[in-house]
Amino acid sequence: MKLILAIVSSDDGSIVSSELTKAGFSVTKLATTGGFLMSGNTTFLVGTDDEKVDTVIDIVGTYSKKRKQMVPSSASYGVGMCTSFPVEVTVGGATIFVLNVEKFEKL
Amino acid sequence: MKLILAIVSSDDGSIVSSELTKAGFSVTKLATTGGFLMSGNTTFLVGTDDEKVDTVIDIVGTYSKKRKQMVPSSASYGVGMCTSFPVEVTVGGATIFVLNVEKFEKL
Amino acid sequence: MKLILAIVSSDDGSIVSSELTKAGFSVTKLATTGGFLMSGNTTFLVGTDDEKVDTVIDIVGTYSKKRKQMVPSSASYGVGMCTSFPVEVTVGGATIFVLNVEKFEKL
Ligand code: NI
Ligand code: NI
Ligand code: NI
Repeated sequence: MKLILAIVSSDDGSIVSSELTKAGFSVTKLATTGGFLMSGNTTFLVGTDDEKVDTVIDIVGTYSKKRKQMVPSSASYGVGMCTSFPVEVTVGGATIFVLNVEKFEKL
Repeated sequence: MKLILAIVSSDDGSIVSSELTKAGFSVTKLATTGGFLMSGNTTFLVGTDDEKVDTVIDIVGTYSKKRKQMVPSSASYGVGMCTSFPVEVTVGGATIFVLNVEKFEKL
Repeated sequence: MKLILAIVSSDDGSIVSSELTKAGFSVTKLATTGGFLMSGNTTFLVGTDDEKVDTVIDIVGTYSKKRKQMVPSSASYGVGMCTSFPVEVTVGGATIFVLNVEKFEKL
């Protein structure tokens, strides 16, 4: 039995949570304030059998890994004149810790 | 030394917390949002000596384990006519992970 | 790889967080409600290489350990008469759990 602690950006929290649940995993979401990803993030606890750890990591990665995104930006190039253009930013990202569980109880 | 992570339904959070404290355990409550028990739930961190792990599990189980409860329900059986009757629902439930602590410090 | 769980008093949360970040550690702050230190407290997750565990503990300890502080207090000694004097109270304090990480992924 393993306990997986996954920290994902808040933007990806809902999709990661629902995809893990859909795949049959029990997910507990901890309210995380601030943290090491630029924006807010969400921490999940997932308890699972040893042989399903990689499935959890795959799901978390698929729905939260770092990716480039084009966002609109703008620059002014004169008094009251302004142009809008897309910039590439990196969003998402996940940090995953897998811990060994010595004892597991469901009461 | 072990770290016990106990996830209980929010309804049972206060009693579990106070009974653990009364028994001499140091309890840290994490704000948990959503999760795998139907209603809201609360996650506790309890650090304890190896030989007291079962005591913690017993206390958590006593005050939060799944049980049947009769709740009032109602059904309408005609225009504007309604009857109230009790239904049995399952409430509570606890999930407990015991982790090994490699090093413990109280500063 | 280790996962360090550090619980400090909320008063010390910001300084501990910024000093750990300044030293190059990735810090995730969990919202903690109540807990075993008298006032509110903050729980940090810090993932780090085995050889840097003591550095993390040193930083957390330096900025959050228990210390005496003089705070103003007052006593009334007659009808409408009151005197103010300093009392020594203990503030701060940290509890640290070091857990072994079986697998670590940054996606
Ligand atoms: Ni196992
Ligand atoms: Ni031990
Ligand atoms: Ni290691």
